[in-house]
Amino acid sequence: MPVLLDPAAAWPLDVLLEQVPVHGLSWRLEGDTLPRVAGLGTLQAAGPLEIAFLSSARYAAQLQQSRAGAVVLAADAAEAACAQGEPGFARIVTPHPYLLYARLAQWFHGQLGALSPPEIHATAVVAPDAELADDVSVGPHAVIGPRVQVGPGVRIGAGCVIEANCRIGAHSLLHPRVTLYEGVSVGERVILHSGVVLGADGFGFAPDALAPTAERGRWVKIPQLGGVQIGDDVEVGANTTIDRGALDDTVVEHGVKLDDQIMVGHNVRIGAHTAIAACTGIAGSTTIGARCMIGGAAMIGGHLQIVDDVVISGGTTVPSSITSPGQYTSLYPLAEHAEWQRNAAVVPQLARLRKQVRALERRLSDNTPDA
Amino acid sequence: MPVLLDPAAAWPLDVLLEQVPVHGLSWRLEGDTLPRVAGLGTLQAAGPLEIAFLSSARYAAQLQQSRAGAVVLAADAAEAACAQGEPGFARIVTPHPYLLYARLAQWFHGQLGALSPPEIHATAVVAPDAELADDVSVGPHAVIGPRVQVGPGVRIGAGCVIEANCRIGAHSLLHPRVTLYEGVSVGERVILHSGVVLGADGFGFAPDALAPTAERGRWVKIPQLGGVQIGDDVEVGANTTIDRGALDDTVVEHGVKLDDQIMVGHNVRIGAHTAIAACTGIAGSTTIGARCMIGGAAMIGGHLQIVDDVVISGGTTVPSSITSPGQYTSLYPLAEHAEWQRNAAVVPQLARLRKQVRALERRLSDNTPDA
Amino acid sequence: MPVLLDPAAAWPLDVLLEQVPVHGLSWRLEGDTLPRVAGLGTLQAAGPLEIAFLSSARYAAQLQQSRAGAVVLAADAAEAACAQGEPGFARIVTPHPYLLYARLAQWFHGQLGALSPPEIHATAVVAPDAELADDVSVGPHAVIGPRVQVGPGVRIGAGCVIEANCRIGAHSLLHPRVTLYEGVSVGERVILHSGVVLGADGFGFAPDALAPTAERGRWVKIPQLGGVQIGDDVEVGANTTIDRGALDDTVVEHGVKLDDQIMVGHNVRIGAHTAIAACTGIAGSTTIGARCMIGGAAMIGGHLQIVDDVVISGGTTVPSSITSPGQYTSLYPLAEHAEWQRNAAVVPQLARLRKQVRALERRLSDNTPDA
Repeated sequence: MPVLLDPAAAWPLDVLLEQVPVHGLSWRLEGDTLPRVAGLGTLQAAGPLEIAFLSSARYAAQLQQSRAGAVVLAADAAEAACAQGEPGFARIVTPHPYLLYARLAQWFHGQLGALSPPEIHATAVVAPDAELADDVSVGPHAVIGPRVQVGPGVRIGAGCVIEANCRIGAHSLLHPRVTLYEGVSVGERVILHSGVVLGADGFGFAPDALAPTAERGRWVKIPQLGGVQIGDDVEVGANTTIDRGALDDTVVEHGVKLDDQIMVGHNVRIGAHTAIAACTGIAGSTTIGARCMIGGAAMIGGHLQIVDDVVISGGTTVPSSITSPGQYTSLYPLAEHAEWQRNAAVVPQLARLRKQVRALERRLSDNTPDA
Repeated sequence: MPVLLDPAAAWPLDVLLEQVPVHGLSWRLEGDTLPRVAGLGTLQAAGPLEIAFLSSARYAAQLQQSRAGAVVLAADAAEAACAQGEPGFARIVTPHPYLLYARLAQWFHGQLGALSPPEIHATAVVAPDAELADDVSVGPHAVIGPRVQVGPGVRIGAGCVIEANCRIGAHSLLHPRVTLYEGVSVGERVILHSGVVLGADGFGFAPDALAPTAERGRWVKIPQLGGVQIGDDVEVGANTTIDRGALDDTVVEHGVKLDDQIMVGHNVRIGAHTAIAACTGIAGSTTIGARCMIGGAAMIGGHLQIVDDVVISGGTTVPSSITSPGQYTSLYPLAEHAEWQRNAAVVPQLARLRKQVRALERRLSDNTPDA
Repeated sequence: MPVLLDPAAAWPLDVLLEQVPVHGLSWRLEGDTLPRVAGLGTLQAAGPLEIAFLSSARYAAQLQQSRAGAVVLAADAAEAACAQGEPGFARIVTPHPYLLYARLAQWFHGQLGALSPPEIHATAVVAPDAELADDVSVGPHAVIGPRVQVGPGVRIGAGCVIEANCRIGAHSLLHPRVTLYEGVSVGERVILHSGVVLGADGFGFAPDALAPTAERGRWVKIPQLGGVQIGDDVEVGANTTIDRGALDDTVVEHGVKLDDQIMVGHNVRIGAHTAIAACTGIAGSTTIGARCMIGGAAMIGGHLQIVDDVVISGGTTVPSSITSPGQYTSLYPLAEHAEWQRNAAVVPQLARLRKQVRALERRLSDNTPDA
């Protein structure tokens, strides 16, 4: 229930809305009285000084109980809310409530206080031949290696380690404790969350066919000589890892959004504006198209091609290429455990069950005079 | 096979047991001779100077071979062990062997040597307006931001980064390289393992309905304005991440135990004393009840309600709410690969197979004079 | 498309090959003209100054289009490539193309520039009683605790934290931001990638049978008194965690290769030369044999025994021990979502379906005069 601004300095709703950069999104205000507002909140938690939003019909029931001073919502939802008379909240009516909420949140976020002025902290270790543009911040105990190039306005958090020959584009933000291995390239306005590791070695080993018998099964490391390229406007969640390529680069195109604890193998390519939820793994050399949406804890096999505009349900394993847009799923249905046991016991008999059914069909046809 | 104390200073078993704070747990000693003990060990590895324990009937067979000087076990197991005469080990008989083992382990752990005296390391960077209570330790290269409040007896490991306005309750322990983003609140006696990230941005983006065609699919970031609240007596495993809320806080209630590499999405709430094994992901806005036990690598979908006292098997995907206590499972049965192929080939034909069976039933009923 | 050396200083192919330590692997050169080479590349990306390789028949089609100056390949593939006349590339013919490529990559990697001379960075915090052998490098802001023993030639990256009593064998490489908890033992020539955590507490809690009703479900922590032993020639991927044992040690035998974001629970033992792909979790007290290959995002239950030479498909859940070598799988087949829904709806009816089929068989036998 964050009241983001000082309530004593709450803004008249119409004045505030005029301040918010909506990038062309249309909206109109409805309501008998316009509240003063100091923050944002959910329908359930917002109070009279806060703006809430309704972006999905599944939460429409919460609208009647909401104590919010104003609600962002679509025209039909606004009309429904007024069916019984003037509701207790002003309406900010827009064709895209969730997008307008995003713009409002960005504005409030900006009000939270100016960023600290750029500073290279005295404990940071910056190589003499690293090139830092103007207005770069480097936090305490961060390490910036030789020949690193850092664009204007970049903020590098405490404890980050940027190895030699990396490039970081303008206005990117590295939260604390991010590692960039040698030669990683990061675009502009990129956000890397804490614990991210870009450019660690891909998982490449050749079986040692010449190993002595006692060492049978030994592996020979294949040095990973490729790099990692991260496009503009990419966001990478906490503790996500993106490995460097074996020879060519691993590539994340612009606008891609990666959640926490995702693992991107070597030589993967992820197309523009694809969004991937947490805990997903993508094995090496797989190409994922643009504008895909991949649910959490998905597992994508290696050396696959997935076309643009594919949706993969959370928890799904993808063992083969996907050649048509659409939604794909591979979940075993959840059940109460004893029921699961009863049905799962049949799974190892499925091939036999199918045979039995075919045999029954044959026998019945043989037995049926009119078949 | 850790012998934890100097064997030369081994304790008589009865004297040692009187030292151990058992918090009311009853026990009695049985055996013709009481050994001197210097440590703990498993049934298989313990020697005459060590105490072993038997907490599950599945390991009863190991009891006969054990060389342990003493064994913690339940009355019926002790009786069975003596059926053939006095065994080679003393018996510490208690209704709760695993709990007594935990108390013994805590006592031995305490004997391992006093903690180093509290110290703010000279290389730590502590904001002038951070408030550190008495007896706080801050390791080398740790960073503590403005207005952070740290309770008495807290230990903050090397390389931790605690951003502005965080609160850490008394006697909590942060192992090295933990990140707390701005405004995270951590309770008392909390343990955070290395690589934990609390308060990174939740995964929130609105589709940019106004994007030009060339940028179709573009996402607009929703600033994550909520926080993270961690209750008392919570433990969080290595490299686990808990994201901050979008508007309301993400909440982990007291006594919750999280294993390594768990991902907790924004606005999740986890009820008191729930234990979650490693590699589990919990998508945003899901509420998990109290005293749940969730197996490893489970995947819990977003916006779900899971009631108290639910058990979820390891590897299970939960795509919908769970409204009754009990155990739930969704595993596809493991099989040798060729057998798996045979049966898995039938899965995409299941709907047809059911139709065929129904058709057979109808045909057989039609053909059967007495049906 | 890395050209790894200065093209102006490209080597004649035969001269270069004589330089590469192939450890006994046989090869011969074929081709009308021998190119000068400066690097390695994939069949698709390599140019005339680069060596490519063909190790799998699935990429044979790329051979004809390749612009590579030379290609490493097997005799039959070389013969096929020459069936239509002399191809545009020299052939490096060997019975083990992937292994020879690994050796070439190692040689090129070595040419990339000598390692910086060993140095203990001025900002590193090294305990006075830590024992560092000759030629040890310690990066900026690394922390090395009391009584740590570090072998010759070890390189410890920036921001690593090595707690008391750890041992690191000769020529091991710790990338930045690795944590070793107290008492962890690491072999020789080990590679630990950024974000690795070795020796965090295993997930061990006893139910508190004596908790008051209001605190029902409370857990009592079991101190984790065991350690972690990592053998020689092990590689551990980014953000992977290996927990310390409860009493005995967690053991990773020599030559094991672990990818990123793997979770190894307490008291697990992994046999020599086993390779495990990313995002896999291994629950506590499980033993995995030698030379196993485990696909990505597998989930291995606790207290299991898996014999040598087992292959586990990616995404597979292993809930029980595996007693014979071979490949094992448990994937629910992927399908387009609507088709998945149709077939998944039958899964909870499988036990009934089997009953129906049996009933049909009985009825048909009863009805069939000649049955």
